[in-house]
Amino acid sequence: MPMPLEGIKVLDFTIWQHGAYGATMLADLGAEVVKVEEPESGDLARWYISQSPDGFNSYFQAHNRGKKSLSVNLKHPKGRGIIYRLATKVDVVTENYAYGVMDKLGVGYKDLASLNPRLIYASATAFGSRGPIAHWRGMDAIFQAMGGAMVNQGGGPGNRPVPVAIPIGDQVGGMIFAQAIITALLVRERTGLGQYVETSGVASQIALQSWRTLATLRHGGIDRRQSPPGRFGTNPTWHFYQDGDGQWFALGLMAHQGWPPFCQAVGRPEWVEDERFASLQARMGNQELENLLTALFATEPRDHWLARLQAVGVPCGPIYSYGELIADPQVAANDYVVEIEDPHWGKIRVPGVPWRFEKTPAGPRRGAPELAEHTEEVLTGIGGYSWDEVAQFHEEKVI
Amino acid sequence: MPMPLEGIKVLDFTIWQHGAYGATMLADLGAEVVKVEEPESGDLARWYISQSPDGFNSYFQAHNRGKKSLSVNLKHPKGRGIIYRLATKVDVVTENYAYGVMDKLGVGYKDLASLNPRLIYASATAFGSRGPIAHWRGMDAIFQAMGGAMVNQGGGPGNRPVPVAIPIGDQVGGMIFAQAIITALLVRERTGLGQYVETSGVASQIALQSWRTLATLRHGGIDRRQSPPGRFGTNPTWHFYQDGDGQWFALGLMAHQGWPPFCQAVGRPEWVEDERFASLQARMGNQELENLLTALFATEPRDHWLARLQAVGVPCGPIYSYGELIADPQVAANDYVVEIEDPHWGKIRVPGVPWRFEKTPAGPRRGAPELAEHTEEVLTGIGGYSWDEVAQFHEEKVI
Repeated sequence: MPMPLEGIKVLDFTIWQHGAYGATMLADLGAEVVKVEEPESGDLARWYISQSPDGFNSYFQAHNRGKKSLSVNLKHPKGRGIIYRLATKVDVVTENYAYGVMDKLGVGYKDLASLNPRLIYASATAFGSRGPIAHWRGMDAIFQAMGGAMVNQGGGPGNRPVPVAIPIGDQVGGMIFAQAIITALLVRERTGLGQYVETSGVASQIALQSWRTLATLRHGGIDRRQSPPGRFGTNPTWHFYQDGDGQWFALGLMAHQGWPPFCQAVGRPEWVEDERFASLQARMGNQELENLLTALFATEPRDHWLARLQAVGVPCGPIYSYGELIADPQVAANDYVVEIEDPHWGKIRVPGVPWRFEKTPAGPRRGAPELAEHTEEVLTGIGGYSWDEVAQFHEEKVI
Repeated sequence: MPMPLEGIKVLDFTIWQHGAYGATMLADLGAEVVKVEEPESGDLARWYISQSPDGFNSYFQAHNRGKKSLSVNLKHPKGRGIIYRLATKVDVVTENYAYGVMDKLGVGYKDLASLNPRLIYASATAFGSRGPIAHWRGMDAIFQAMGGAMVNQGGGPGNRPVPVAIPIGDQVGGMIFAQAIITALLVRERTGLGQYVETSGVASQIALQSWRTLATLRHGGIDRRQSPPGRFGTNPTWHFYQDGDGQWFALGLMAHQGWPPFCQAVGRPEWVEDERFASLQARMGNQELENLLTALFATEPRDHWLARLQAVGVPCGPIYSYGELIADPQVAANDYVVEIEDPHWGKIRVPGVPWRFEKTPAGPRRGAPELAEHTEEVLTGIGGYSWDEVAQFHEEKVI
């Protein structure tokens, strides 16, 4: 069975995480993604963050798996010439350099689209390509900062901001970037049009928080409904508790319809008629109810409560560390962690993919490439260069 | 100019946020998305969360804008008949009910795909459709809980878990869901194949945290490199500071190449040669440097530092509340907030879209529908029913 993006070729200039993860999603979907890297240092992400003693860089691996690496010196005229030729043979160009860098290198949208009108040229910008700070540089921390997440996580305006502990800025940006590219491929398939496509780190944060940004727009700029720090909100049944062994679990009950079954499941049928808890409004912020639940849940193991609550349709689940997450049988059953054969690392376990396509399965195929690992393969393959030409490129330090 | 998904029809059974936001992304891209709702109550999200006194429900609006609403009683045989007819006329069916609910209602994948082999049937599940807890129910809090974010946000195993203040579970799940559907549309365009497509809340969390899950897999289940609570990490130049007026801003400098320009920009060129800060390793966790920066940044306004640092290419930006975010001129310049004309609310400002397509622009077109607002329009339009038939459906309480 073919993979979803089988046959799609991507010339990938992305670096670090934001654009790089987006391009890796395309590789996980079956595209042939050729990462173009500067011959000496390559993507700087190779050398920073997450280097472990055995040389396995989980940051770089997570954001570049499944790609090929082509080293090209873009400052050499013949290097640009290689890109011009490859641009006529690929479907997509991806990049997340600071605004204007690709143009200065002579490999901007106009340069490449003029050679291949069907090309999709996709830029993962920091702040969008228009406006007063279009040329600024941003990375994960900056997207979180501007997008409102840090103030929200800190408990609202006036408090010390608190970062979200996971890289929502870069990673959500990467997801939106891949989404835009796949959409543009669909448009091209239906209309024949190639085009420029742009996303941004800040825009992705607004999308991630569309409910809160809309609420703020509607309520005149006032940040309403701020959750108390360290909580989901004030609803005792949309909250988390500890069992008697200290194991944490989360409840996700909102609609009033779920309250009677909830009371039955936790062995407190009398609460259904209890005036103190008679409506969602009465339960919101009800410390008495929260105290009762805290004491009650400490009397039995987590699995007891989860099984009883799920049996009546109350959303709930264990709170896991990453170590517990990857060991969960549900994760294995759905291929959310899989084993792949990597040419350098052998059999390694890696995160799977978040999509399941019944007829065109997606999935990781190999780890990240070594710097320049596929230079000859790509130049003689997609590029159509002879081995003599490739040798000449080496000699002239073009690659 | 056409919109990216112009002409694509979606029969949308999604509820609450996870699936519903994914389907709204398709509407923002130009698809005709028909939300199928139970005639009496509709999507329960209409009645919970974010009701404001004027009746504007920002939660429901954010996750259902641009859709049409069709009320159908799925428990009535004629109601199912309507769905069977519509299933032959649409491209995509979306749903995020608990596992098995759609099958029980007679509108599962097998029921509908047998009527329309080109159909893409997309399920946003909680935990995936295979494995021991496939039938469990999950919502945002549960995805955060199982996916590792709460333990990470709390500072690692052994600490009290802390929720991420924004709904990363449902919203990232919705993004991945939309991405899968668009991919399947592209596959269908290239191969003619309709198929079943599935995503999940938990899988989306693993994708969001692919770096950390990979690091954990590699290091044998140990959660390494935990950031201290309330910080991005231990690097004083990947951190946040206050200016003299109490305004917060974030720095995102990682690579060593950026250190000399950073020192120049903050007026401390002597730090370039200072042994205490001579390498990234020396600066990581360096409290002395952090104290020096804290004192230094308090001496000038935020805009001074941001301009100077950006001038030398150091990523940085202001830390914003939602109110500050939506007021930023960069946001306006890139249409990240736009005004739309809604039939019920008139001109309203809403979040824009995170993608920019040069030749096929996307964007929000109207707010969320009233319950059953488009029932007649959809039945007589896409459905091809006569007005007499529609009247009969009303009489028999089918719609």
